[in-house]
Formats: sequence, C-alpha cells, structure tokens
Amino acid sequence: MKKLLFTFLVSTGTIFFSCQRTYTQSKDYKNASLTIEERVDALLPKMSLEEKVAQMRIFHANIGVEAEGNGNLKLSDKVIEKLKLGIAGIKNPGEHMDPVAAAKFNNDLQKYIIENNRWGIPALFVTESYNGVDAAGSTRFGRPLTSAASFNPQLVNRIWDVVGREARLRGMHMCHSPEADLVRDPRFGRMSEAFGEDTYLTTQMVVNAINGVQGNYDGLGNGTHIGAVAKHFAGYGQVLGGSNFAAIEISPRTLIDEIYPPFEAAVKEAKTLGIMASHGDINGVASHGNPELLTGVLRDQWGFKGYVVSDSNDIARLFYFMNVAESPEEAAQMGLEAGIDIDLYAEDSYAYLPEMVKKNPNLEKLIDRSVRRVLRTKFILGLFDNPYIDIEEVKKGVRANSSLTLAKESDLESIILLKNENKILPLNKNKTTKIALLGPLVKDDTKSMFETVASKHISFVAEKGFHLTDEKGGAPKLLERDENAISKMVNMAKNSDLSILFLGGDEFTSKEAFFNNALGDRATIEPVGAQDELIEKIKALGKPVIVVLKHRRTLAINTISEQADAILDTWDLSEFGDESTARIIFGEVSPSGKLPVTVPRSIGQIPFHYSMKEINYKKGYLFMEDGPLYPFGYGLSYSNFEYSDIKKSNSEMTKDSEIEVSVTIKNTGNVKAKEVVQMYIKDVKGSVIRPDKELKGFEKISLNPGESKKVSFKITPEMLKFTGLKMEKVLESGEYTVMIGTSSVDYKKTSFQLKK
Amino acid sequence: MKKLLFTFLVSTGTIFFSCQRTYTQSKDYKNASLTIEERVDALLPKMSLEEKVAQMRIFHANIGVEAEGNGNLKLSDKVIEKLKLGIAGIKNPGEHMDPVAAAKFNNDLQKYIIENNRWGIPALFVTESYNGVDAAGSTRFGRPLTSAASFNPQLVNRIWDVVGREARLRGMHMCHSPEADLVRDPRFGRMSEAFGEDTYLTTQMVVNAINGVQGNYDGLGNGTHIGAVAKHFAGYGQVLGGSNFAAIEISPRTLIDEIYPPFEAAVKEAKTLGIMASHGDINGVASHGNPELLTGVLRDQWGFKGYVVSDSNDIARLFYFMNVAESPEEAAQMGLEAGIDIDLYAEDSYAYLPEMVKKNPNLEKLIDRSVRRVLRTKFILGLFDNPYIDIEEVKKGVRANSSLTLAKESDLESIILLKNENKILPLNKNKTTKIALLGPLVKDDTKSMFETVASKHISFVAEKGFHLTDEKGGAPKLLERDENAISKMVNMAKNSDLSILFLGGDEFTSKEAFFNNALGDRATIEPVGAQDELIEKIKALGKPVIVVLKHRRTLAINTISEQADAILDTWDLSEFGDESTARIIFGEVSPSGKLPVTVPRSIGQIPFHYSMKEINYKKGYLFMEDGPLYPFGYGLSYSNFEYSDIKKSNSEMTKDSEIEVSVTIKNTGNVKAKEVVQMYIKDVKGSVIRPDKELKGFEKISLNPGESKKVSFKITPEMLKFTGLKMEKVLESGEYTVMIGTSSVDYKKTSFQLKK
Repeated sequence: MKKLLFTFLVSTGTIFFSCQRTYTQSKDYKNASLTIEERVDALLPKMSLEEKVAQMRIFHANIGVEAEGNGNLKLSDKVIEKLKLGIAGIKNPGEHMDPVAAAKFNNDLQKYIIENNRWGIPALFVTESYNGVDAAGSTRFGRPLTSAASFNPQLVNRIWDVVGREARLRGMHMCHSPEADLVRDPRFGRMSEAFGEDTYLTTQMVVNAINGVQGNYDGLGNGTHIGAVAKHFAGYGQVLGGSNFAAIEISPRTLIDEIYPPFEAAVKEAKTLGIMASHGDINGVASHGNPELLTGVLRDQWGFKGYVVSDSNDIARLFYFMNVAESPEEAAQMGLEAGIDIDLYAEDSYAYLPEMVKKNPNLEKLIDRSVRRVLRTKFILGLFDNPYIDIEEVKKGVRANSSLTLAKESDLESIILLKNENKILPLNKNKTTKIALLGPLVKDDTKSMFETVASKHISFVAEKGFHLTDEKGGAPKLLERDENAISKMVNMAKNSDLSILFLGGDEFTSKEAFFNNALGDRATIEPVGAQDELIEKIKALGKPVIVVLKHRRTLAINTISEQADAILDTWDLSEFGDESTARIIFGEVSPSGKLPVTVPRSIGQIPFHYSMKEINYKKGYLFMEDGPLYPFGYGLSYSNFEYSDIKKSNSEMTKDSEIEVSVTIKNTGNVKAKEVVQMYIKDVKGSVIRPDKELKGFEKISLNPGESKKVSFKITPEMLKFTGLKMEKVLESGEYTVMIGTSSVDYKKTSFQLKK
Repeated sequence: MKKLLFTFLVSTGTIFFSCQRTYTQSKDYKNASLTIEERVDALLPKMSLEEKVAQMRIFHANIGVEAEGNGNLKLSDKVIEKLKLGIAGIKNPGEHMDPVAAAKFNNDLQKYIIENNRWGIPALFVTESYNGVDAAGSTRFGRPLTSAASFNPQLVNRIWDVVGREARLRGMHMCHSPEADLVRDPRFGRMSEAFGEDTYLTTQMVVNAINGVQGNYDGLGNGTHIGAVAKHFAGYGQVLGGSNFAAIEISPRTLIDEIYPPFEAAVKEAKTLGIMASHGDINGVASHGNPELLTGVLRDQWGFKGYVVSDSNDIARLFYFMNVAESPEEAAQMGLEAGIDIDLYAEDSYAYLPEMVKKNPNLEKLIDRSVRRVLRTKFILGLFDNPYIDIEEVKKGVRANSSLTLAKESDLESIILLKNENKILPLNKNKTTKIALLGPLVKDDTKSMFETVASKHISFVAEKGFHLTDEKGGAPKLLERDENAISKMVNMAKNSDLSILFLGGDEFTSKEAFFNNALGDRATIEPVGAQDELIEKIKALGKPVIVVLKHRRTLAINTISEQADAILDTWDLSEFGDESTARIIFGEVSPSGKLPVTVPRSIGQIPFHYSMKEINYKKGYLFMEDGPLYPFGYGLSYSNFEYSDIKKSNSEMTKDSEIEVSVTIKNTGNVKAKEVVQMYIKDVKGSVIRPDKELKGFEKISLNPGESKKVSFKITPEMLKFTGLKMEKVLESGEYTVMIGTSSVDYKKTSFQLKK
C-alpha cells in the first residue's frame, strides 16, 4: 500500500473562488481515525435535505465543466449553483484532456467542490471502460468480448488493474463498468461491451475485472484504483430482439440461474462499490422501480453495501418512457423506494425530492439510506482525506510500457483461429512473398504494422477499397457497392501471392442504439456491403485468401467461412491490433483464443447459445443446417492437442464432498502453443429441465511440442446447485456427466453419481 | 334436440365375436335416468385396477384396427388383448374410409368394445381438425389461421359446427382441436393450426370453434356433435426459435395475461370437454408434470371438469426426453399427480400404473380421479345409452350442400387484399383478356376453377412451372432452380395481357416438425426457391402482375410486395380455394379479410407482434426499416371506408360501470363491401409496463356504396384488468386510449378516465 503525497497546485484568479463561503468545520467526520460508519454518522445529521439530495445526483461534465485555454477550470452558472450544495459525482470531467492535464483539472475541480459546499464533501469523478479508460490518452485494450476470448481471467484482471490505475491517476474515482450482462443476441449493438453468452465465463471475467479495477479493494482507499459499478442489473442483455430499450421477457428460473450469478459474484466475491440498474424491465416490472430486485435480491440476499446508480435518466423514464409512474415525482419515489441511490443525469427526478419530502416526510429516511451509501463510498475511496492526485505520478503511471505490452499480450491471447485449411497459417516470414492487405477494415497503419513484424522478404500492398458506412453525422448509412473499389482490390490480389482480407463491421454497424438518429442495433447479422462479393472474386483468382475478421457483434459469416483458406477472428483488439494480428499470422505466437459466443448460421437460428436446455437442439430445420456455424469455446491452434486419460478421483460424491476430474493434454504438434482446457457439466436428470451442458471450469495452459500436462478440475456441490421446482436452490442426487475438452462440442466424457 | 334412432346392422361371422365373454350387468350405471355423477359413482367401484387404467389410455388405430376387404372389422391380437379391459379411446379409427363406411366400421368397433369388456364401457373415438374433420370424405375448410383472417367468429362457429356434425356422423366423439395457442413466431411449422398472434382474436375464435364443434354443448348428449380438446396447455406456440419441442421461456405475467385467456375462455365460456397439455415446459417445468398448471390453474382456478389428455407420448417423454423423471414409472407418477387423465399412445407410461399401485396404494385415488373424468365424458356424450351412428343420417349429413357453400363463404371472407396498385383489382370479367396463371402454387384444377368464374371473354393458360420441394419420402428437399421452367413461364406471361402468379409455400415448407426426417420448422421466412426471380422476370415484361399467396406460415415477401401490382393473401383456403380466389379477382365479392398476424420484413425483426410493450417499438435498426411489412389487422377492400365521429358515452368510468365508444363508418366507394371495425385499447400508465395496444373488440359489417353505419363497442372494467405487481388481477385508475379503425395502425382515437 502506498500513500500519495499531496502536492496541489493552487489555481488562482478564476471566477469560482468568489463563490466560496464560510462554513462550520466538523472535526468528527473529518477525523480519519474514526471508522467509516462513525464518520458517516457524524456527517449525515449536519446536512440539510437539499445537501443530502445533492449527494444523490450525478451530472455530466458537458453541462458546464470546462477548461479555459490555459487549462484552468471554467464552470457554467448552472454548475456553480449546483455545486453549492455539493454533488454525488460528475461524469467524465476532463475526458478529452491528456492524463496530466486531466489530473490537474480534476484536482482544481475537486478543490472547488470541497471548498464550495458547507461540509467540504468531495465529489466522485466517474468514467467508464470498454477498451481502457474512456478518456483521452489512456491505454487502449481490446473490448471486453475480445478479452473474454482469451479465456484468461488473470489477463483480464491485469487489464482492469491498468484501467483502475490510469483512471485514478487522471482523477477518476468510479467506473460505470464492467458489464456483467450476458449477451446472447447478436442483433444487440452493445454486445462487445460484455463478456459473452456464458454465465460462468462472464462471472470469472467480471470478478477479475472488478478486482483489477478496484486493486483488490485495497486500491480504493490507498488511492491507486477506482470503484467498479457492475451493470446493468438485471437482464439488460436480454432485451427482446436485441433491441436497446426493448422489454425483457425472461422466466424467473433463467434469471436466477443464468443472469444473476455474475452480479452476485461482483457483490460477494469482488465487493463492487457500485451497481447500475438496467434500462429495462423484468416481466413487466421496470428494474428502476423494482424493490425486490434492487433491495430484496441485491441487499437482503447478497448483502450489497455499495450504492445503486440509475442508468442515464432512467428514473425519470419510469414516467415518460416506461409509463409505470403517473408523474415525475412518482417516478422519483419509485426509484427511491426501490433502492436507487443516485440519479444519473436527470433534472426532473430526484431534483424533486426536497419538495416531495415536505408533503411526505417519511421519504427522508429513504434519502438518508441512500446518502449514507454515497458518503460511505467517498470515505472508502479516501476522498475526504486525500482528495487530490499527485501529478508527478501521472506521467509515470499512464501508458506505462508494461501497460502497452499488456495490451499486445492480451491481443495475442484473444485472437481466435476459426479455420486453417491445409495449415496455410502461419505464413513463413522468410519466404519471399507478395501480400495484398485488402478490404474495408484495413487501417491507415495496417501495412506499416505488418511490415514491422514481417521480414524484408515479404512485400505488402494495402488498400481499404471501400467504407462500410457513411460516418458523416446523423444516422450512419450503409454505402452503395463500389464497383471500382472492388476491381482495384481484385487486381491487387491478382498481382500478389496471397491476400489478407480485413472484413467484418465498423463501429457504426454495431454500437449502442439510442432513439432517433443514433442507431446501432440490427435485424440481420450478415456482413454488410460487398464483403461477400469481394472475397468470392478474390478467391476465384485461385490464390490463397486469409481473412482477418474485425467486428463488435457476432456475424453469420457463411460465405467468408466457405471461401477463406484461413480465418482469424480478432473481434476488436487493442490499439496494437494489426501488429498483434501480424504476429499471429507470421507465427510468432500460436493463436489460443476461443469463442465466448456461439456463431449461428443466420439470425433465424437464435436463440442459440450452447447452454440452452437439451430439448432446444432437437431442431430440424427444413432448409437450414442444424448446428451453429462455430460453437462456443471453439478455436484452433497452430499445434495439435491430444486429450486422453480422463479420470475422476471418485465416482461418487456427496453434498459434503468434492471430486476431482483430470485429463491429460499433449501437444502433438510442432510449435509451442496455449490451449484452453474446458470443463462442462451436464446434470443428466433434474426436477426441472436442465441445460444441455454448462461450462464449470477452464484453464489455459502452455505446452511445448511433445509436452504433456495433466489438468485437474475440482467439482464441488456448490457448482451443481440450481433453482428447483420450489424456486429454491437445490442439490439433486443422480448422475452427472463431465466433459473436458477443447470446445463445447469436442471433449472426453466421464460421469459420477451424487449421493444424498 | 334430436334423438337418433338406433338401427345397428349386426356384423356376423367375424373373428371377434368369439372373444365375447359373460359379465355381470350393473343396472345402476346403465340407468339413464340417474345423474351422470351417480352413474360414475355406480360404475367406478366395480372396476378392477387394470380396467381403470385402461380408461386412461388412448391408442392409435394404426396399431391394429383395420377393415377387411369387405369393410368388416379386423383387429390385431394386440388390440384384442387391450380391449378386454376396455379403453379410454382410439385415435382415428376408419380415418381413410368414406364417411358411411367409417360410420359402419366404427359402429362395429364400438359394439365389439362394448361387448368385450366386463362393464360394457364404450370407447371415445378421437379425431382432430385443421381444415375440417381429419378423415376422408369430409368437407375441407380453410385452416384456422385462414379463418381467423375473416375476423368473423360466427363463420368460425358455423365451420366447426359442420366439423362436429361430420365427425359425429362418422362415429367420432372427441376432437383433439382446436388450438388455443398464440402463434407469434413464423419459423414454427404449425402456425397455421392456430388462430394467429392475438389473445383476444384467438379467444373469440376458440370459443366459437368449441361451441361449434360441441353444438353449444347440447350437441354432445344428443349425439349430433363431438367434444373439443383445446390444446396445447400452455404456451406451446412460444417454443424458442419456433422450434417444435424446444423449451419455452416466458415470464409469468405474459403467461397469465396473454397465453391463458383463450384456454380460460375455452373452459369457462365454451365448456370444452377436454384439454391437451403442451409438449413443452414453462420456465423449466415440463407441462406434463406441472400440477400448478394442470390442477392449480385449470381446475382450482378455472373450474375445469373435463379430462386432460397428454400429447403423443409426452408422459413417457418426461423420462426419456425432458429428463425430469428418473424412470418411466416416475414419469407416469408425475403425469398422474400433475393431473393428466389420459396417456396418448405411450406403451411405457400409464401402462405401468397397475404395478406401481402395488407398491404405492395411494396412487389409486389419483387413478380414480382421472377415470371419473373419462367416464363422465362418455356419459356426457351419451355413449352408454346411444353408442351407435344412424347410417342413414350419414349420407345426408356429410358434405351437405350447405357445408360446401359455407366453405366457399368462409374463403371469400378470409382472403386478404394486401396491395392493389391503381385499383387493378377487381378485373373486368367481360373485357377480353388473356391471363396466364403461373407459378409453383398453381394446381391441376386452377385453370378450370378460374374458367368457372370468368366469362368467355377471358382466356387462360396455366403453368405450375416448378415444385418448391421434392415430396418423395424422407426429409423433403428444396428443389434446385429450374431455368427452363422459369423461361417457359416468362414466355407465357409475355403472350398474355396479365399474369396471376401463385406463390408462397407448399405443405412441406411449413408443417409440424418431428425428429429425424419429418421436418417443418424453418430458420428463414423468405419465399423459398426461385419465386422472387420469377416475379422479377415477369414484372420486367411491363405487364400487370397479380400475386395470389398460398402459405401456412407468415412469409417475408419483400420482393413480391415491391413487384406485384396486387397481392391477395389467401393463406390456405378450402377445397374450393382457387374458385374463391377467382371470385374475388373478378369482383364478385370485395375482399374483407384482415391479417391475424404481423408480417415482419425479416426474421430478424421478431419478436414483433402488434401488442408488445410500447418500449419494443422504439427500435432503431441500422439497415432495416422500423415497421412491419404489413401490420396486424390490415387488409384492403375494393371499396373505401371513411371512419368519423368517434364518440364515447362517458369520459369517465368506474369499476362498476361501463362505457360505450362508437364510430361511424361510411362506404365511400362504388361497391358493396365488408369491413372489420377494430377497437384497440391502451392503458396509458400502469403499475407494470403495459402493451402498446390491445385488440378488445371487432365487428364485421357490410355496407352498400354510400351507406353509413354506426358501430358501438362496450368497454367493461373486466376488459381492462391485468396482472399487477403482486401477480393478482388489478383494475387501475387512470387514462385509457381507445382506438377504433381499419387496422392496428390506422384508427380514430379517443380516451377516457377510469376513476376508482
């Protein structure tokens, strides 16, 4: 643990110092030797109702928290007025500044806030993270779905450790991430923000992300890390039709057994400081107005002590969108009663609480309940004691070499080899080859990144050819087919020995969908534009075609899958993505990523995740093959792995015992490679219909050519529990099948009996 | 009420009379002056356990109930052995015989059964109905979804009245129909067996179908009609992905408010004699083993007194398919305890009950409970008193002229005009025109049917061109594109003044999907084969193209919709379908059908029924238009209707009052026409998220040119109730919007307040 030295640079001459006013210092709550509870107890009673409610609101910096040309703080009148009462937090202050400037700016802002509210209560500065801190100058990692493909929770932990450190160094305290949602509908524009379709995999990744970003909780108080806000509680990934803001139709057992566990682990194992509620409903009940969910499950069952924040404007939306409140005031009361502690952004919701208390004084107890949680968070983060950033640390800490190396390392573990006909990959770095880098996902620096990796024997030409979408303002449009661009690329391919096509989707073909013109959800999942035509024409030249897929949603790549000699599925890698891809292509590292989602052949196959009930796979479509295009957990290697010798420590297990199942994996190929050994369990018979199989363990191992390793998995009674007929967790006796293998469809099998 | 004269023709010389044995007659239960309950009470205690269990099983006639060449009964040894104990019923005896032969055959069979079990208990002969009695020689009506498009419940009532009469006349007693399921996923192969996507429309149609087939219940005892078995309870239409036997994921509120009402009305309003359980599960709980559903809801809440029959083999499937039972015996016990009274077909389920009772005598009470229900049904149907058919009545009653006329009438009311560019329809019967009837849905008699309707001024050529599927055995295959066939049709179109294209799907592109090679569900809903190409090539000739759609599932007819000048959506009409279509085309009658389903632009738009929660329609797809291709309730006319003057009897309503909303509809066109006036209600604010709108009334009216009519709808508090936060039915005060119009998207609006 490390204490930051406080070296605050005094800002002078700015307008805001005129706003300072005198206030009574309370020694009690500022006394760092008291417990947090004692300090909250000391502070809360001093606060006026208006001050309390201010601690239940977060506003976005874009309403008037700006920097002047010289970097000095410039606050709008509206913001100045707000800050007189204090504030729970501000979203994204200084987001467009480089880390050092942001740290200075946020120090100034924090100082202003502390000095301009009666009790000197600091504010939470809030960011989020999809591929690193969502602010300028941060290390850019792959997106969560990409990192999930690594099946390496330690890697995810290290990524989010960097996120937490880089965020804190620029003055942030909370992170509206990670997503603990399951994403099972590729029409959903936000799918790459989460860790895939599987409950267990997502749970491992979420726990490691939170432990990373919070510095194993210790990083909060010692000022090195920030608090996580796991979102969106609950079921947000299950919006109907993958359509943002749509209703959520989910049965109670699925909710408990499949959707809750990543959140439960976020609370119980990783001690997340915050939870964000879901835009949506569950069974018609809006999550922002659902006390059973936000208080009953979250706090009473799981013991959550942090705060619950609304999603943007969602308390007010109970009135104007969900239509479950008759007025904005009723919406505010519903949110308050349900257990939403902080109102994100809305001006027409918790803002009404002071007036509402006049009519209904009982509400103040609920307000106190929420304010306690917010104040507690600020004490945990040490903000009352050490509110400022040591600027000297920022330069050393942000974009450290180790962070950039980590970004590359995580790329290399996340790239998935979907196809490798005749072992065309890896390419020989030292054989004279002319390679064409072609297609809409080629970037300006793709060629130079490839050149960095390849030897002088390889010569490259590169051509993007066409864009997929028109990115200029308003609703992005799909571009028309460009005959010239296609011809040009075909000619370049003709003059090369082989082509590497960069296909998939751009950021506009998959993004968070708002209303009106900010779209992003889709009804189809085929690659857009002339991409299929491009590969067909280039493949027709009779030369090898390697495809690098870049995308943010699952794509039904039927044509690509048929035409390509090799496919590397890279999803959305770090800022070094093309370099990492080149390293894989030239065999510096063998690919070891595995699909964290099922890839269907068409949208008509969904719902189609691997862990559905067995009866879902009895489908007999008339004009469509039965299976997925690529199954969950799938991914090839440059080497080969032989699984053998599956063994169990015991063929019987009781509710008080565990068993161990092991398998031997041998690298029978010629290169050193990593493999994700996956364990699935099937409860053969259950009182309710059971999943076809469920991932319950995985381990990523590295093997030299010829090397063998025994991998063991512990199976505990806890892993076998599910929600039984009476909606209570049960452990049922009977037969269980254990499958250990290289994907969800390729494994060795054994079984054991659970005896009561 | 009419008593049938009993004139039974004695069969002699057949093997089975040798099986007769003596038995003790009980005067009690055969005494027709006793109440049914008294008769059941008298009979049940006499029966052995084995005899009781026999009353809980139905076998299919195909296991050995045949006719010899002379029409005499021929029973397999297996059947003879079974019938010694009596039997609940036999499915489809005599199904391939003409009605008179079937009646004779079934009289013989019934006589054999009565005389060969100790207590002379008659059997239920069971059929089903999708487009008339599912047996040879019956009147063929349109399918349920087709008749739902009529929005004419009286018509449906009359159709099912014919079904009931024709079935009873051939010796049937029960009908495993109608389907009360909602069909909202066009991938589901069985969608045309139900009445569409809407709860209210389906409820009206189901009640009328049951009242029809049961002769308003009176027809049961007086021997003119048969008992209905509403199916599949509950949620079967909601199988995931539209995939038969897949799991069902449905939230409890949706289940109660949307899925249950047609079943509840079948029980409470129409007094259905039977209910069939659903293949599927609800929230992981298999419906065949769900006592809350089959006993709690069905009997305790709704007061159902009839019997519950399993779907084919589904009790046994609790063991070998659903994997919720550890053994076939446990499956049998689960079914029995849940409330399944009759096991359909299985040899490895209720067959085990006698042995099981030896170990667990308590089971006999449950067996008695079920047997009572079966016996009661047989008494209600008068089978103990009048078990035989009057053969003379059969000839008069089956395929009566009135029935055939009704089939045509229902076609004319069910055909939906989707498009009519430049009012190209109706065609002038008396203008010399050369018409080409083209496409895969042209039948052998299409040309002659059109000739029957048209005048001599119209000349027809007809060409099917190509089949869509290979219907020869095994899994049907989609056929390859046939260049010659397309050229031939294009040439025929070139030599004609206009073309009528018969497009859509055949029976193999949409049917009930079993396992292995009997497929029928689909992942895509575009028209299969070269149909889009065909219309594009013919349209390119520059001559008018009219499309007649024939299909059994919703099709995303984007190209057809763009290319055709006019589209008549006929779904699957009666045996006179092409003639009826010609009558509409030549303007004998104006079309008046309305879509009972939403037609999406692609499968990627689903779920997409009109009554989802409002928040589902905020979708902003990136590369796909927002709305459906055609909305629910939509259908054009040859005339025009003007809606005006929407009025309410009161702008306030209480829980004890009703209001009336009326609108005036004027036929502003030139032809007499029918219009379906539709009332939708929206609960503006609710304690849970409410549907965007819900159909709550409709009336089909006929108007002469220039004529006006005022149509009034009563709105009752009962219509406004829904399942509230506490999962109880609530009536909530506040504003309600009333929309009356010509479809779910084109209406006049008013509103009222419900005051508590």
